[in-house]
Amino acid sequence: MKKWIPAASGLAAGFLAATVFFADFSTGPSGSATSDSANKTNAEKVYVPFGEKDEYYLFASGGHSGQMFIYGVPSMRHIRTVPVFSPDSATGYGFDNHTKELMGDYSWGDLHHPAFSETEGDYDGKYMFATDVANSRAAVMDLKTFTVKDIMKVPNTSGPHCAAFVTQNTEYMFLPTRFSVPIGSEYADLDNYSEQYHGVMSAVTFDEEKEKLDIAYQVALPPWSYDLSDAGKKMSADWAVMTTYNTEEATTNLEINASQADRDYIVLFNWKELEQKIATGEYDEVTGQKMIFPEKHKGGIYLVPVAKSPHGVDVTPDGEHFIASGKLAPAMTVFSFEKAFAAIENGEFDGERNGIPILKYESVMEREVNPENALGPLHTQFDDEGMAYTTMFISSEIVKWDPATGETLDRVPVQYSPGHSVAAEGDTVAPDGKYIIALNKIAKDSYLSVGPSHPESMQLIDLTGDKMEVIQSAPVNPEPHYAQMIKADKINTITVYDKDESNPNAIYNQEDAKIVRKGNEVHVYGIAMRSKFIFDANAKRPDVIEVNEGDKVVIHLTNIDFDQDITHGFAINQYDFNMEVQPGQTNTIEFTADKAGTYPLYCTNFCSALHQEMSGYFLVKPKN
Amino acid sequence: MKKWIPAASGLAAGFLAATVFFADFSTGPSGSATSDSANKTNAEKVYVPFGEKDEYYLFASGGHSGQMFIYGVPSMRHIRTVPVFSPDSATGYGFDNHTKELMGDYSWGDLHHPAFSETEGDYDGKYMFATDVANSRAAVMDLKTFTVKDIMKVPNTSGPHCAAFVTQNTEYMFLPTRFSVPIGSEYADLDNYSEQYHGVMSAVTFDEEKEKLDIAYQVALPPWSYDLSDAGKKMSADWAVMTTYNTEEATTNLEINASQADRDYIVLFNWKELEQKIATGEYDEVTGQKMIFPEKHKGGIYLVPVAKSPHGVDVTPDGEHFIASGKLAPAMTVFSFEKAFAAIENGEFDGERNGIPILKYESVMEREVNPENALGPLHTQFDDEGMAYTTMFISSEIVKWDPATGETLDRVPVQYSPGHSVAAEGDTVAPDGKYIIALNKIAKDSYLSVGPSHPESMQLIDLTGDKMEVIQSAPVNPEPHYAQMIKADKINTITVYDKDESNPNAIYNQEDAKIVRKGNEVHVYGIAMRSKFIFDANAKRPDVIEVNEGDKVVIHLTNIDFDQDITHGFAINQYDFNMEVQPGQTNTIEFTADKAGTYPLYCTNFCSALHQEMSGYFLVKPKN
Repeated sequence: MKKWIPAASGLAAGFLAATVFFADFSTGPSGSATSDSANKTNAEKVYVPFGEKDEYYLFASGGHSGQMFIYGVPSMRHIRTVPVFSPDSATGYGFDNHTKELMGDYSWGDLHHPAFSETEGDYDGKYMFATDVANSRAAVMDLKTFTVKDIMKVPNTSGPHCAAFVTQNTEYMFLPTRFSVPIGSEYADLDNYSEQYHGVMSAVTFDEEKEKLDIAYQVALPPWSYDLSDAGKKMSADWAVMTTYNTEEATTNLEINASQADRDYIVLFNWKELEQKIATGEYDEVTGQKMIFPEKHKGGIYLVPVAKSPHGVDVTPDGEHFIASGKLAPAMTVFSFEKAFAAIENGEFDGERNGIPILKYESVMEREVNPENALGPLHTQFDDEGMAYTTMFISSEIVKWDPATGETLDRVPVQYSPGHSVAAEGDTVAPDGKYIIALNKIAKDSYLSVGPSHPESMQLIDLTGDKMEVIQSAPVNPEPHYAQMIKADKINTITVYDKDESNPNAIYNQEDAKIVRKGNEVHVYGIAMRSKFIFDANAKRPDVIEVNEGDKVVIHLTNIDFDQDITHGFAINQYDFNMEVQPGQTNTIEFTADKAGTYPLYCTNFCSALHQEMSGYFLVKPKN
Repeated sequence: MKKWIPAASGLAAGFLAATVFFADFSTGPSGSATSDSANKTNAEKVYVPFGEKDEYYLFASGGHSGQMFIYGVPSMRHIRTVPVFSPDSATGYGFDNHTKELMGDYSWGDLHHPAFSETEGDYDGKYMFATDVANSRAAVMDLKTFTVKDIMKVPNTSGPHCAAFVTQNTEYMFLPTRFSVPIGSEYADLDNYSEQYHGVMSAVTFDEEKEKLDIAYQVALPPWSYDLSDAGKKMSADWAVMTTYNTEEATTNLEINASQADRDYIVLFNWKELEQKIATGEYDEVTGQKMIFPEKHKGGIYLVPVAKSPHGVDVTPDGEHFIASGKLAPAMTVFSFEKAFAAIENGEFDGERNGIPILKYESVMEREVNPENALGPLHTQFDDEGMAYTTMFISSEIVKWDPATGETLDRVPVQYSPGHSVAAEGDTVAPDGKYIIALNKIAKDSYLSVGPSHPESMQLIDLTGDKMEVIQSAPVNPEPHYAQMIKADKINTITVYDKDESNPNAIYNQEDAKIVRKGNEVHVYGIAMRSKFIFDANAKRPDVIEVNEGDKVVIHLTNIDFDQDITHGFAINQYDFNMEVQPGQTNTIEFTADKAGTYPLYCTNFCSALHQEMSGYFLVKPKN
C-alpha cells in the first residue's frame, strides 16, 4: 500500500504542485484481510448478491459533467447518471420541450455540492438540490422520479460554489458567489476591484407545492471568494457559516496573491435576523432583488478569523461547533457557537471589514488541532459518536479525531489527494457512523488506464472496526466535489406515471391518435406502446407522419405501457433529437421540418422482442 | 432466485408484450456460495483489491446516450464514459474546435455495436469502432488515448445498426442500413416502397496512418431491414453474413406485417469478389459512391433462408459455421460455410430475390437446435472450446450448447430479458472462455430504484466451474446493445501528450504566453499549469483576457504539466463552454464575445490544493 508524501515540508504555494514520492504503508484494502469487527472479508463486506439491495444511496456531484451520479453503498456500483445542467440523449433531457426550457440557454453546467432536503435536521428523502458554478444556477431534483423539477438562474452572482447546504427544515439554501463580480456582471476595470466588485450571497427558497425555486433576498458581501458553507443545527439552527479566501482582494495570480494574509474569515450570520431586516424594509432594491448592504443595513453578519485559505466549514451534528481548516495550514480549528454568541453579546470585536464586525479569534476559537504531518486539511465529516473525520489533500489520508479533546484517534491512507469525504447521513443531526467515502481527486494507477486523463476515485471506508479500513475503491467519471449518502429506505420512487386526464396533450386510447394540421403547423397526438407507434389511428399507415418542407411539427407522445421499467424512446433519423417517454408519461417535441426527404423514425429504448419492429417513417414533401 | 416465464406458450407477436409471471429457480448468485471450480466465494471472485487491476476491459455501447462505457472485469466497476456521438462537458468533447468539428451538425447519436480492430482475427488493442443508428455515422476511437479520432457520415443509409464488425485484418467494416430509404434519402411515396427504397450496405475502410474512415464501395440491397452481421474467419475469412427482417417489404405496423413470412434471409457475401468488381468497374456511380446493384452486377452475394425475424448472426471461432436464430422461433440454426460454398458451386438455388440467388435452406443448414422451453434466442457467443452461449430474451436465460452436436449443456437464468451477451475475447478466433456477460434489457427490482425508468443490467457469469454461475450483477446507464471484452494487457495507453513543437498553437514556456489582436479577432496563446493560467506573460494581470464586445476570440491553451493525471479545465462563466487540456495537450476554443461585462474564468478540473485559486477574468468592454 502506498501513500503520497510531499517531497518538502514547507507550506508555500509552490511546493503544492511539486514532485511527490511514494512511501510504503502497511495497511490498506485487501480481498482476503479479515476485519476485527466482523467475520467477513472486505470482498464480502461490499458484495451485494442479486436479490439483495444496497443499504445507502450515494448522490455524488458530477462537477463539470453537469450531472449527478447515483451509486449504491456498500457495493459502490454506479446505478444511474441523472442529467441536471447538461443535455442527455439517453433520457431525452434537454431535447423535449419541457427539459429544453429547464436548461435555458446553456448546454452544460458545473454541478457542485449536492444537498438533500431536510426536516428537523434529518434528510427527508424528498428532494436533492445542487448548484452550477459555471453559469450561476440552482437546481432541484424530485426523488420520486429522479428528475429535475426546476432550474433557476441566480443574478448578481458568478459561481455559487459555496452551496447547496440547506437549513434544518429546508427554509433556505445560501448561495454566495465564488467569484466576485460587479453587481449585474457589468463591465468594470479590475483596478477598481475593491470598490466595484461584490461577493453577493442569495438566500434561495423552494416551494414544494409549486416545485419552484426562488430568491428571498441577497446580501452584498465584500469582494472576496466564498468557498463553502454549512447551516447551523439545533442550538445554532438560525445561523449559517461560510468560508472565504482572497480577503486580500487580489485581482491576479491568486495562487500567490490570495495567500498573503495569515488569516481569512468565516462569515457567520443569523438568517432569522436577515429575514427580519427584509420584513422591516432594511434593504435596497437592486436589479430587481432585495439586497442587504452590511455597511448600511447593519447587524446579523460577523466575521470570524480563520487559518488562511480555508476550504470547508462543517457544523458538528449537535450544532454546537463549527470546524474549519486553512488548506495551507496543518491545523484544524474548532470554533464554538456558544462562544461566538457570547462574543457578539459582549462586543468582543477586532475592527471590521466593509462594515462587518470581526470577532476576536480567541473569543470564538475553542481548539486548534494539529495531527503530526497531516497536511492539507480540507473537509470534515462526523460519525454517530460525534467524532470528526478530516480529509488531508496533501498527505492523502483521512484523520479521525475527537473535536471535544483534539485527540487524534486514527488515520487511514487514501489513494490519492482527497477533496471532500462523505459520511453516511453525514450532514444530519444524527450521522449513521457506519461508512465514510473519500472522494479522491487523483487515481493515478488505481484502475485500468483509460488514457492520459484518469477517472477520479471514491474509496469506501468501514468505520465499524477498531481501525478505519478502506474496503472498496471505485472509479468515477469527472468530477465529484461533494456527495451525500442517504439510507435507502428514505427514498420512495414511483413506478409508473399516473394517467393525467387533465393533460390536453395526453391520449391513452389507440383510437384517439390523430394528426391535426393548423396552417403550417402539424400537431401529432401519438401513442408509444409495445411494439408500435400510432400517430393517426385512421390512416392507412398509422405509424407514418407526413408533412411539408418548412412545416412546424409538434409531436405529443404518450407511453401507454403502464408497466414498470417499460420506457420508449422516439427519434427521427437525421432530425437530431431523442425523446424519452417513461411508462405513463407524455412528452412533447417541437421542431421545423427543414429537410425534405424520407426519414425513418424508431423507438430508441429496447422495449420488447419486437423492439426492432417499432418504427415508422417521417416523410417531408419538398417545397417544389 | 427468480426468472421470467411467459404466461402463454404461443409465439405470435402479441404475446411478447403480454403479462409474464415469476417462477422460482434454485440457482443464482450469492455472496457466500462457493463454486466447485475454486475455493473462493462469488464476492471474492469479483473483488479487485487496491493495488491489483481488473483482468479485462469491457467496452459497452451506450446506445442512445451516444457514448461508450468502459468497465473493468471481473469487478464490473464503471471506469470511464467516453463520449463519441454526444457532447460531454466533463471532457470538453464537442466544445473545443477539434471535437466540435468531429461531431458535425449533430448533438447526439445512437451508438450501437462496438468492434475492436483485429489482426489475424484477434483483437489487437489499437482501435475501437462503432456506429450511430440515429444519424448514420461511423466512428473510430484510439485506444492509446481513449478519444475519438474520426467520425464519418455514411450516405444513402439510414441507421447502420448491423455494424460494426470487422474482417479479420480490419480490411473492412460492413455497414448495411437498418431502415431502407430511397437512395440519397429523397422523398418517395411509401406506396412505391419495393421499387424506390433500398437497403444500402457500405464497405467502410480505416486508414491507420491518416486515422481516417472512408467508404470503399456500396451495395444496393433489397428494401429490407438489416439487423446484425459478422465477418468470416480463417476458412471463411473472405466472407461476411448479415441478418435481415421485413423481407415482406411491409411499410406499416411491422410488429405484425414484418412477421408474416415463415423465413427471412441471411445475406452471405464474398467481399473479395465485391472488391474485384470494383476493381474491374462493375458498379454504377451514384451520389458520388461506387454502387454495386446485384440485379445488374451479378455474383458474390447470396441469400440463405433462416427462421423468421432473426436478430444476431455469429460466426464460430473456427470460421466453419454461422449461427442465427429467428427471434420469434424457439430454434437456433447452425449453418455450414463449407456446405454453402458447395451449394454455390453446384447451383443449389431456390429462385432469387432482386437478382440475388437464394441458396436452398437444406443445402446450407447443418443443424436446428431446440432446447426445451428456451424462447427468444437472440445472440450467440463462444468459449475457448467452441461451445455456444445463446441469450434467450423471452425465457431470460443463457443456454450453453454444443454447435457440433446440438446438445444442451447448461442453462442459467439472468435478470431479465438479455439482448446481447459478450464473452471474453468472444469475437476472435480464440475466445478466452473465462467469462460471459449478459446484457439484460430489464432490471426491474434488481437495484435501488431510481424512478420509473430503471438502469439496464449486466450480469457477469463465471464459466470456469461445472455449471455457469452468475457472480456479479451491475447496473448500467441506457443502453448497452453490444459490448466487447478484451484482455487488459492488450491496451497500451499514453500517460501524457508529447510536446509538439510543430504545432503553431502550442507554447511550452510561460514567457511565450501572448495575446495577439488582428482587427476584430483576438488570438490568445495561453498556458494552463498548477495553479494558474497565463494568457499574456507581459501583462499586469497575466490571467486576464480583455476584449471588445463583438470580437471573435480564439483561445489556444496548452497544459504544461507533463505529469500523469494532471488535467486542467477551462471555462468562462456564462459563456457556455468547457474545454479540457490533458497533460501536454493543446486545445483551441473559438467564440464571439457577444455579452459585455465581467466574467470570471477558472479551471474546472481539480488540479492541486490551490485549484480554487486557478482563476482569472474575461472582461468584455461594451460597444458604446
